[in-house]
Amino acid sequence: MTENRIYNFNAGPAALPLTVLEEIQANFLNLDGTGMSITEISHRSPAFDGVINDAVARVKRLLKLDDNWDVLFIQGGASMQFCMIPMNFLGAGDTANYVNTGTWSTKAITEATVQGKTIAVPASSEDRNFSYIPQGIQFNPEAVFVHITSNNTIKGTQWAEFPDTGGAPLIADMSSDIMSRPVDMSKFGMVYAGAQKNIGPAGVCMVLIRKDFLDRTPDHLPAMLKYTTYAAKNSMYNTPPCFAIYTVQQVLKWIEEKIGGLEEMAEQNRAKANLLYRLFDSSDFYKGTAEKESRSLMNVTFRLPSEEMEARFVAEAVKAGLGGLKGHRSVGGCRASIYNPTPLDAVEALTAFMKEFERTTG
Amino acid sequence: MTENRIYNFNAGPAALPLTVLEEIQANFLNLDGTGMSITEISHRSPAFDGVINDAVARVKRLLKLDDNWDVLFIQGGASMQFCMIPMNFLGAGDTANYVNTGTWSTKAITEATVQGKTIAVPASSEDRNFSYIPQGIQFNPEAVFVHITSNNTIKGTQWAEFPDTGGAPLIADMSSDIMSRPVDMSKFGMVYAGAQKNIGPAGVCMVLIRKDFLDRTPDHLPAMLKYTTYAAKNSMYNTPPCFAIYTVQQVLKWIEEKIGGLEEMAEQNRAKANLLYRLFDSSDFYKGTAEKESRSLMNVTFRLPSEEMEARFVAEAVKAGLGGLKGHRSVGGCRASIYNPTPLDAVEALTAFMKEFERTTG
Repeated sequence: MTENRIYNFNAGPAALPLTVLEEIQANFLNLDGTGMSITEISHRSPAFDGVINDAVARVKRLLKLDDNWDVLFIQGGASMQFCMIPMNFLGAGDTANYVNTGTWSTKAITEATVQGKTIAVPASSEDRNFSYIPQGIQFNPEAVFVHITSNNTIKGTQWAEFPDTGGAPLIADMSSDIMSRPVDMSKFGMVYAGAQKNIGPAGVCMVLIRKDFLDRTPDHLPAMLKYTTYAAKNSMYNTPPCFAIYTVQQVLKWIEEKIGGLEEMAEQNRAKANLLYRLFDSSDFYKGTAEKESRSLMNVTFRLPSEEMEARFVAEAVKAGLGGLKGHRSVGGCRASIYNPTPLDAVEALTAFMKEFERTTG
Repeated sequence: MTENRIYNFNAGPAALPLTVLEEIQANFLNLDGTGMSITEISHRSPAFDGVINDAVARVKRLLKLDDNWDVLFIQGGASMQFCMIPMNFLGAGDTANYVNTGTWSTKAITEATVQGKTIAVPASSEDRNFSYIPQGIQFNPEAVFVHITSNNTIKGTQWAEFPDTGGAPLIADMSSDIMSRPVDMSKFGMVYAGAQKNIGPAGVCMVLIRKDFLDRTPDHLPAMLKYTTYAAKNSMYNTPPCFAIYTVQQVLKWIEEKIGGLEEMAEQNRAKANLLYRLFDSSDFYKGTAEKESRSLMNVTFRLPSEEMEARFVAEAVKAGLGGLKGHRSVGGCRASIYNPTPLDAVEALTAFMKEFERTTG
């Protein structure tokens, strides 16, 4: 650990690669010889064009997106997308399917229904406390889109394979697993991700949108709520969140140049998660809460024999330099979020601590 | 100048106080002993509560706001406010007045009309190319609010005194002069400001809202478009733009503790602007574009005898370490933006350069 930094297992905002943070810090008073901070340069400058265009190019390379795709940066997080998606894509007579796999899916559904849009929920895992990803779903072939949450941060579940919709394009909230693995984007009409888990800081949402979806946007919407506004101006209709986009660019560069791409990123993420899941499978002390075939490689949720022991576990972990292990306030328990930037040694330190805690406590 | 930094006259994103940038840089890998960067800490942590609560408290002290006011941080810039204001405050049968003093006022008006809201524009300065602030306006006493743009970045005009509306509360876009002077907030129902000019980086909009205005928000709006959502959760219904809010907090601290408050800030801002306006008034070479009594203390717009000379002026200024002097692309000419963080010595360097440029060129 450098400069008394901790091992950070926060669910988001979350750890960023130390080398990325050091690079941002080193350039903070003078970005690339501009004589200005990234927080001070004009978004209408060649320097910022360089930042945003490089970020877009890296996204397209990493996810193998062709010119049928636009890469947008929008403020308001995934929550704003919950509202913009039905607003832009569902006109009178249109319908969409939403799969409900937890808190965030539920919010996406609420934001469509509050607008009076017609949607259906052909599958939900609420019957077993959202501990699994539904399979064999019958989708409506007329659906304009099928909305899924690719990874569920709170319940620790993840779609290992994306569902066969029978033709309707998928729209996925990938806030908590974007860029963590290769994705066959041909199944998707849109993908969005708040940056603050796998690819950057809070304050920007990355939106990947297939150009034919842009044609659905009605003219009468306010400018800031139309995808076409962002697409027409390279996300700079108004001042974009420059620092957040710059940090995303630096993380994407790290994935491409330091990690080597999404295959390599996925391999590291599997290795990290397996350390923890192997421990659960060989222990009666730690109990994973997600069903085995739905386990998330990003958010590893688990329980200890009692709530009192969980509280002690979290408190002693903090003393040992392991932060952010408390489960989401809505479910309790423990959670280790191990997104792209979390290094293997952090997870090794965690599993060592867990073994020792079990030995001395269990 | 430190580390080859330039004198930065950008219109926004714009200069930030060097001591603030240095403080952020020094703490970038480890915020206040958390062992994490400000970009990595949870927004549900005591550390971030400390940041946002301190920012709110400083805003309230600086502007003398009592408990009838909420201080919110919302993403999407002032442009998102253009859409949220009529959406939240204008129901069936309601009307509002908008004064049109330039590009941003015009956009605010457009975003109300695109939603089918009933508004009127009792005054506009378009007849003289938005070079002045209208006076003696007859407002509709039934208006739910009167919307003004307190400072016009592109045309270089500013309301020196706020208008007497006959009772209707003012809503002001103060993006380009927030915290630049004391304001009698009793005239206002709401004030909003994109942070990236006077108080921080791009990526967050500060919204000051009187609690009775919150009562107007209808229930059926999407969560992210309702002011009540932000007010109920201290701006943390979803993940807020933590870095941007933190930087705003640091700038507010600088205004309170280094500058001494808004009276002192205003005095410094007047001194800076006067250096430039005195130069115009004693020169036939530099011509201010705003009418005298409407001159902005924030954005000083001017022309040289020819466009060719303006281009040379801007280019030679850059060579002399003076950046951002080109006028807005929609109007041409030159502009020096001298917000709160711009130090007096930057303006002194600029006026010295201008005198020398006139001597050798004029």
